[in-house]
Amino acid sequence: MKDEEPQIREVIEKWIRASEAGDLETVLGLMADDVVFLRPGCEPMRGRDGFAAASRGMAGKMKIEGKPEIQEIVINGNYAYCWNYLSIKITPTAGETMNHSGHILSVFRREPDGRWLLFRDTNMLTAVEN
Amino acid sequence: MKDEEPQIREVIEKWIRASEAGDLETVLGLMADDVVFLRPGCEPMRGRDGFAAASRGMAGKMKIEGKPEIQEIVINGNYAYCWNYLSIKITPTAGETMNHSGHILSVFRREPDGRWLLFRDTNMLTAVEN
Repeated sequence: MKDEEPQIREVIEKWIRASEAGDLETVLGLMADDVVFLRPGCEPMRGRDGFAAASRGMAGKMKIEGKPEIQEIVINGNYAYCWNYLSIKITPTAGETMNHSGHILSVFRREPDGRWLLFRDTNMLTAVEN
Repeated sequence: MKDEEPQIREVIEKWIRASEAGDLETVLGLMADDVVFLRPGCEPMRGRDGFAAASRGMAGKMKIEGKPEIQEIVINGNYAYCWNYLSIKITPTAGETMNHSGHILSVFRREPDGRWLLFRDTNMLTAVEN
């Protein structure tokens, strides 16, 4: 099996850069239609539409910078999981910068056309001191 | 490929029953040597030894009851991931019962001898009203 790990790293890098640029359409193109996002204390956020609705509510209200530190990627057939340690800096247009960091365990799925897309995602980020 | 999903469900059920019974050795036998547990705001808990040390500190101090609600299991080769919604009830020997619930995304790995063991685990449980 050819090594597809660089493709998954590229999805993660593209996601971060597009989020920083406020380019929601590119971010949406990196997730499966039936993606699910899991967080503590929240209902699952389901589907590309769920993500889009949540993101549009925040559009233009903040600047985001992200630094992923990929700990591990394991690929099997059309699925892969990735353990990532993500640090993000959120600066509201009116307000102080907030830093969040923490672990993310994600499942990626390879589509019939060969693209790897985010399929399941956990977000365990917590606020950290500035 | 034969359907191995029941084997993974059995690992989860055994884990809950052994935890309820305070049977740490059985629980340890259901995880890989190099297991990693991820939680919000915590360093990763690494290895069977890390889990054992953390569990021994709590031995005999509480009663645990758990109810897993498995949302999804996807198996690929020697890896599988499982999305679970877990509710646990913790009753300290001296104290009031606490309820926690939330999502868990886990990766299971099939060992060379065919057993499925927990390999990566996220815990997004939060306290809920009694």
